[in-house]
Amino acid sequence: MRILIKNVILKKRKVDILVEGEKISKIGKNLNLKANEKIDGKGEKAAIPGLINCHTHSAMILFRGLAEDLPLKDWLKKEIWPREQKLTQDNVYWGTKLAILEMIKSGTTTFNEMYWFEEAQIQAAKEMGIRAKIGLVILDFLPMGQKEKVEKLFYKITKSLITDSQITLTIAPHAIYTVSKENLIWAKNFAKKHKLLIHMHLSETENEVLECLKKYKMRPVEFLNKIGFLDKNCIFAHSVWLSEKEIEILEKRGCSLVYNPTSNMKLASGIFPWKKIRKRKINVCLGTDGPASNNSLNLFSEMKIGAILQKIENKDPTVISAKEIFEMATRNGAKALRINAGEIKVGKLADLVLINLNKVEMFPNCDLISNLVYSDPKNCVSDVICNGKILMRDGKIEGEEKILKIANLKNENFGN
Amino acid sequence: MRILIKNVILKKRKVDILVEGEKISKIGKNLNLKANEKIDGKGEKAAIPGLINCHTHSAMILFRGLAEDLPLKDWLKKEIWPREQKLTQDNVYWGTKLAILEMIKSGTTTFNEMYWFEEAQIQAAKEMGIRAKIGLVILDFLPMGQKEKVEKLFYKITKSLITDSQITLTIAPHAIYTVSKENLIWAKNFAKKHKLLIHMHLSETENEVLECLKKYKMRPVEFLNKIGFLDKNCIFAHSVWLSEKEIEILEKRGCSLVYNPTSNMKLASGIFPWKKIRKRKINVCLGTDGPASNNSLNLFSEMKIGAILQKIENKDPTVISAKEIFEMATRNGAKALRINAGEIKVGKLADLVLINLNKVEMFPNCDLISNLVYSDPKNCVSDVICNGKILMRDGKIEGEEKILKIANLKNENFGN
Repeated sequence: MRILIKNVILKKRKVDILVEGEKISKIGKNLNLKANEKIDGKGEKAAIPGLINCHTHSAMILFRGLAEDLPLKDWLKKEIWPREQKLTQDNVYWGTKLAILEMIKSGTTTFNEMYWFEEAQIQAAKEMGIRAKIGLVILDFLPMGQKEKVEKLFYKITKSLITDSQITLTIAPHAIYTVSKENLIWAKNFAKKHKLLIHMHLSETENEVLECLKKYKMRPVEFLNKIGFLDKNCIFAHSVWLSEKEIEILEKRGCSLVYNPTSNMKLASGIFPWKKIRKRKINVCLGTDGPASNNSLNLFSEMKIGAILQKIENKDPTVISAKEIFEMATRNGAKALRINAGEIKVGKLADLVLINLNKVEMFPNCDLISNLVYSDPKNCVSDVICNGKILMRDGKIEGEEKILKIANLKNENFGN
Repeated sequence: MRILIKNVILKKRKVDILVEGEKISKIGKNLNLKANEKIDGKGEKAAIPGLINCHTHSAMILFRGLAEDLPLKDWLKKEIWPREQKLTQDNVYWGTKLAILEMIKSGTTTFNEMYWFEEAQIQAAKEMGIRAKIGLVILDFLPMGQKEKVEKLFYKITKSLITDSQITLTIAPHAIYTVSKENLIWAKNFAKKHKLLIHMHLSETENEVLECLKKYKMRPVEFLNKIGFLDKNCIFAHSVWLSEKEIEILEKRGCSLVYNPTSNMKLASGIFPWKKIRKRKINVCLGTDGPASNNSLNLFSEMKIGAILQKIENKDPTVISAKEIFEMATRNGAKALRINAGEIKVGKLADLVLINLNKVEMFPNCDLISNLVYSDPKNCVSDVICNGKILMRDGKIEGEEKILKIANLKNENFGN
């Protein structure tokens, strides 16, 4: 399978891009090669790397708008967890498809997932053609979150994914307040044995830190460090309430952190300590969190909110640049998830997005990155390619009407 | 001219809406009446009031992305003001057209403007069919901002607007740090004489307050109160740095305030003191500020950012609701600008927007206001009606390609 993308703007130059198989194989002027598919940007489209959402709970799209204006603890305990008890494999399958639809439409080609009914998610991701890291969730109070079940599921899924390069598993202990020390250590060892990344919530609220201090007489990162949990395979969502000492430990251990500004603001959880982290060699990526606490999966909006939040929080408009936050959503995400993407270069995976420059949001076109971060350009996403396949062409995704129709029909099962 | 809008969802009921002339004349079930234009929502579109942008500088879209990551003072003095010296009537005309294109596409039907070359703005607004309050700018250091010139322009424009109900003038002294006490008093008297609203920046930065304390030995609102400037005709943009006493004065005088969250965050100016203001009877509306400091004119995004900013600032997710911020962008804006709009009711001006519910952002459709505020629904805006005329139909605005084409051709004159 070869895709020839003609006349697109890449870093201010008009080029052609050849995609062969899963990868970008050539970038240059006037490539006149045979291909199965052709896209002509006519000099009016820019090519950017596909965006990478490093922390979400996709199927929570089913709960969007159902419970607003509540603190995290009440929101989880009173509104979300009771509804989640009623979820079925079928609900999660349709919820994940819907969420992926929203992701592709907003230029996302990879997501790092943490939710239940993992097989349903895999089915949805495969059908939609997106790249995904599916977390096997460990959660003490949930029957399907028990380690024995997770282990069994791991072997079952691994067998079915042997020929799949796009979808891989991670181990996802929910958080230190929902997973015992024993189970955290089990998760760590399991991840090590099977060479898996670990995806976990960390220090999202001040309360989490206070409870940890009470229970373990240490702050969360100190505790995790003590039990040997931390290394470069860890990806920690939120990471809001961190002391200088904790930041130092995270840097030393090479962990990746996920900035989730919208969810942290909406639930009033706290503000990611970017200014302190910026000085360190810590890989920071970006995530939307689940669509029930955001309520969107649009990483463009997440970049804007993430940048302006740091500017006001630090009373300094220079504390973060458009380029820095754009890298969180692309290159840094790829680094955290160990995928050969996040940049448009020969040899990289063909995960890329074309932006229609002939839209008012792209005017004037003097700084593409600034427009992408600040001008609200979701509707400028015209074409999305993932793993060498076209997922969206001129704004259209195959079967999208059907997904919306079935999801609407099934609406009553979705916890409303 | 009659427009019949069939089968749209209005406050959870499916209804038909009849527009006659400039106004909504009937709302009911199964209205089968003759009309010049028909729009069928097929039960898949919701009707909402057109959004009202209470503070912007439209033509600054020409400077979008040109100067990022700077504090307000440097941004204005080093980047914006020198470029503005070179602006022409023609630049502002095209810039305003572009900005209105972006506004209509994102569901805005009225904007409260403050910029130079007012006649060019009026021409642009008339051609695009949007409702506008055009501010006659008073600014001491600008030749065309002198009161004699403003007075002359007022009489000239007023004559040309006699038959226009959509476009009216306001008096717009830039700010207390750019307009002398004498000129502020002149502006006040001029506004009183001609029954005009006053549109002004107020206490946007801490520095503005400190300079005022130094110059007048009073805080800005105290100073304006003392010179008899304050009454219910005043609309103050930003209003970030307010003491309790100042808030009390503003309430007593019946002034309207404009919340501009994105610009305040991006320029690190400060945070609107909503929690204190919420307790008072003060009319708060919403604005994007100019597209050079936002960098968008999308009021949906402004609502989201405005709501989540207050939640995190006050460490309280309940401090502002989706409904409250939606009212800022509709009913409260109409109140401030004295227009009979902001709600869909018989007898109100026909300024309304249809939202395509058959989009992923609107799923699940259990709380429309929550989805409008939080789900990033700009691309769900399908039809826009203003003053009884259809400005956008199924996402298309007449002549939009031409506007973009000409604006792009003229790009080099636009300060790049």
